[in-house]
Amino acid sequence: MVLTVGADRRDDCAVYDIGAPVTLVVGSDYVRGPKFVLHELGYLTDYDIGYYLVAANLSDIAAMGATPIGVLSVVRYPSALDDEGFRTVMAGIHQACTDYGTLNVGGDIGSAERLILSGTAIGVASPQRVLLRSGARPGDLLCVTGACGLLGAAVAYFPKRAANGWALDPATEARLLDGWRRPRVRIAEGRVLSRRPYATACQDTSDGLKATIEQLVRASGVGFRVQGDRVPIDPAVAEVAELLGVEPLALAMSASSDFQLAFTVDPALIGSCRDEFDREGLAFDVIGEAVTGDRAVVVSGGSTRPLPGVAWRHQQSDISSLVPDAQP
Amino acid sequence: MVLTVGADRRDDCAVYDIGAPVTLVVGSDYVRGPKFVLHELGYLTDYDIGYYLVAANLSDIAAMGATPIGVLSVVRYPSALDDEGFRTVMAGIHQACTDYGTLNVGGDIGSAERLILSGTAIGVASPQRVLLRSGARPGDLLCVTGACGLLGAAVAYFPKRAANGWALDPATEARLLDGWRRPRVRIAEGRVLSRRPYATACQDTSDGLKATIEQLVRASGVGFRVQGDRVPIDPAVAEVAELLGVEPLALAMSASSDFQLAFTVDPALIGSCRDEFDREGLAFDVIGEAVTGDRAVVVSGGSTRPLPGVAWRHQQSDISSLVPDAQP
Repeated sequence: MVLTVGADRRDDCAVYDIGAPVTLVVGSDYVRGPKFVLHELGYLTDYDIGYYLVAANLSDIAAMGATPIGVLSVVRYPSALDDEGFRTVMAGIHQACTDYGTLNVGGDIGSAERLILSGTAIGVASPQRVLLRSGARPGDLLCVTGACGLLGAAVAYFPKRAANGWALDPATEARLLDGWRRPRVRIAEGRVLSRRPYATACQDTSDGLKATIEQLVRASGVGFRVQGDRVPIDPAVAEVAELLGVEPLALAMSASSDFQLAFTVDPALIGSCRDEFDREGLAFDVIGEAVTGDRAVVVSGGSTRPLPGVAWRHQQSDISSLVPDAQP
Repeated sequence: MVLTVGADRRDDCAVYDIGAPVTLVVGSDYVRGPKFVLHELGYLTDYDIGYYLVAANLSDIAAMGATPIGVLSVVRYPSALDDEGFRTVMAGIHQACTDYGTLNVGGDIGSAERLILSGTAIGVASPQRVLLRSGARPGDLLCVTGACGLLGAAVAYFPKRAANGWALDPATEARLLDGWRRPRVRIAEGRVLSRRPYATACQDTSDGLKATIEQLVRASGVGFRVQGDRVPIDPAVAEVAELLGVEPLALAMSASSDFQLAFTVDPALIGSCRDEFDREGLAFDVIGEAVTGDRAVVVSGGSTRPLPGVAWRHQQSDISSLVPDAQP
């Protein structure tokens, strides 16, 4: 029993060599916080936040290239939440576990001053194939499994919707909420990335793309040069950016609890990696490359500048208040 | 990879057969709650509650007969807690891990509206030797590793100390707080109980002795006959009971987050079990026996009656308010 990745490594999860054909991957995520302003405002149901709790925890497992074998959930709720509400949270938890082929294997329930949701995901991976944040090398291509910033855009939009008289069309609003309601965790993508050692480094984007890239800088000891026009931007994010008066790229890279994977791949392997994604109906975008140094920059419109947007920090509590400051 | 004990079994932890020489045991416990009234009143430091978080999680592992291999901690704190306070919580977490020979392998930190502490403990046990709640048979002896009720007595005493003009002697007060400040987790005892199949059922007493026995009733499908005069009662608990005007046995069995183990042993094995405890400098008390039926009763003073005390329920939020109702 050897702990191969611990808290000091600042990866998404702890990793154990358990003397078995598989390696154990375990991570914990607390999700109750100001991000659930959308729940308080009625945009998310009790079911949705139960579902989200599981997704947030499974995303840490996905980022390591592991397959989940169980989720523990801590659900503490205030007397204001009746038994029906509690059962609804649990139903969301169970549905998310089912959707990702795993089980809610335990945890802790009970009362608290307010709703508190925390979880732990347990997964297994092939030994020596666990995806870490630390292996990116200069020249590796920086990739992301899809558009980022949708969840942050939702938090920037809905709480100020009424006061500002905003009204995006219903399809756009539904798209903004969908990432919160039924987040898609990139377990399949993580598994492909660890099948052969395609990814030299990998992390989920649950702190936002800018923060994720900055963490890869620190963990791998490389810089990154991002091509601004290659970063996928969801049209809904662009619409919110316009309302906010900020650059779409800045909003796409800002604090946002998306569950995309950002990863680096040796350019010699990018073709076979893409083939394998294609075969499984999965996709990714190449958005830049790792370079020597310790700076992450974006190249856009002929100029090179620091990554735009506001990176999530553990001390900051209200990302909706931050987004307007994200103007370049 | 087979999940052998899941949430449906209502044991302390989930258990996995991982195709290795060991079985994996994982459990989560949230500890921030009204029980930390003692922290709010200044009787417990930030360090103490970090230490307690780890102990509470390790106790679930101990109850399964497992050896811990890691603890994940979720520490979310309000802006009112400065960096120094946060570091002090983490120092308590690390010290408890060190004291129990394990490591803090990760988790989640960040801000929240108030201090929130949750954790997950991971352990390993010998296959087929995991201690469950479900194996007690009529005739088995009911045992406990030590006196219960100290932590509940502390919660009943300190918040009302000033208003009632109570002043137990300093040594008694220190004893009441010691279980909160440096709880002793019964990992060594759990390990002995699983070494040979001594314990037919086992559970920690973190909900209080009465609740624990009632849960063993439901899980094992047996009743229990407890000998009131055999239940160990700490003198400090007796002193608080006198102040409260309740029966000492009732307070000793009421809601209290002690980390003793309650377990059942076949009478034919009780001698060798005791010998093995003695050899390791450990101890337990036999307090009754399992019987057919589904009722737990106590025999004291020639009469037989339901277990006294107030069992902890997940919906109840203030055990200090319950204790006075515990009068027989």
